[in-house]
Amino acid sequence: MDGSGLPAAMRRLVSELASLPGIGEKNAIRLAFHIIFKTSKDKALRLSQAVRLARDEICVCETCFHFSSGGKCSICDSAGRDFSTVCVIEQPLDLIAIEQSGGYKGVYHVLHGFISPIDGIGPEDLKLREFIKRLQSDSRIKEVILATSSRIESVATSNFIAEILKKRADKFGIKIYRISQGIPAGSDIEHLDQTTLRNAIADRKEI
Amino acid sequence: MDGSGLPAAMRRLVSELASLPGIGEKNAIRLAFHIIFKTSKDKALRLSQAVRLARDEICVCETCFHFSSGGKCSICDSAGRDFSTVCVIEQPLDLIAIEQSGGYKGVYHVLHGFISPIDGIGPEDLKLREFIKRLQSDSRIKEVILATSSRIESVATSNFIAEILKKRADKFGIKIYRISQGIPAGSDIEHLDQTTLRNAIADRKEI
Repeated sequence: MDGSGLPAAMRRLVSELASLPGIGEKNAIRLAFHIIFKTSKDKALRLSQAVRLARDEICVCETCFHFSSGGKCSICDSAGRDFSTVCVIEQPLDLIAIEQSGGYKGVYHVLHGFISPIDGIGPEDLKLREFIKRLQSDSRIKEVILATSSRIESVATSNFIAEILKKRADKFGIKIYRISQGIPAGSDIEHLDQTTLRNAIADRKEI
Repeated sequence: MDGSGLPAAMRRLVSELASLPGIGEKNAIRLAFHIIFKTSKDKALRLSQAVRLARDEICVCETCFHFSSGGKCSICDSAGRDFSTVCVIEQPLDLIAIEQSGGYKGVYHVLHGFISPIDGIGPEDLKLREFIKRLQSDSRIKEVILATSSRIESVATSNFIAEILKKRADKFGIKIYRISQGIPAGSDIEHLDQTTLRNAIADRKEI
């Protein structure tokens, strides 16, 4: 789509929007149309400013590498969290999902990715060295929960970290956990895939 | 999704992005994440400026109501178009699609909607009065092609306009056409819906 007959300012907006992930050119034209004709000037200005401010102001937490507006993030800076438990996750979106589940009061460590040799991503590209340093320097930490997703590379990443941690676990006096594998809430046994069922049975819990 | 643990500047960007059509909160967080961490400062600034400039600079063409940066749009202002034929369409996105098809050299008139009593949209809400005025004032126009989409309301809108135009057609000395109904390119007869097939047979052409 070359945006024939569109004014330059609109072609420019379409091109910037279409460069965002998951937004095709057709969708970018729809969004641009909405911004230009269905949005008040005030609201369009707010969107414009929000983009600039967010890019200017936001960085990552110096402790856990979650989003932050400088220094520590709101979770690492909160008095109400349990600093003895650290949940290791792949990306900030996972943190948001866990926070919304409402059952976790510990803190986090965001790896910012997973090991993927095919993409040239090794352990040194994750915030793993920083995590080891954190374990060494923060004596409050007693539990680590590895909560990577269940894609193959993520499980491998989790295994890799578990191996490294286990070697140091006794020295640091920490316990290592993996987030539980099992059947998702509300699902029918008959419709579950084989791996999920196998994991759920292998990880069975006495009642 | 309440964006727990997100810095204010990011919550603000997420909220502005999520207010755009077709972008849910989860998607807005992904886009915000991309803008903040995967985009250079320069590029983020370009997006921010593109939003503001587009909203500030773009209006509709005084003749055809397509996007314009003031006065006439690039199509109405072009010497290379055939001003004797006007294609009547519902929205600017339709113009872009027709331009890309490459087979049309006439000009356009954008209605900006279709008649939909259930949504309280009547003929007076479309750029229809303006179209009648245009026909009266522009003696170059000899052909009108009604090219609304094939949803029921659009067909009804097209019928409504056809009725109005037919009454005036002789007076204006113009011919009225409807975009052809038939089988889409590359489709199997066996998989077509009944209405499309019925239309294609009813509109058959002698060869």
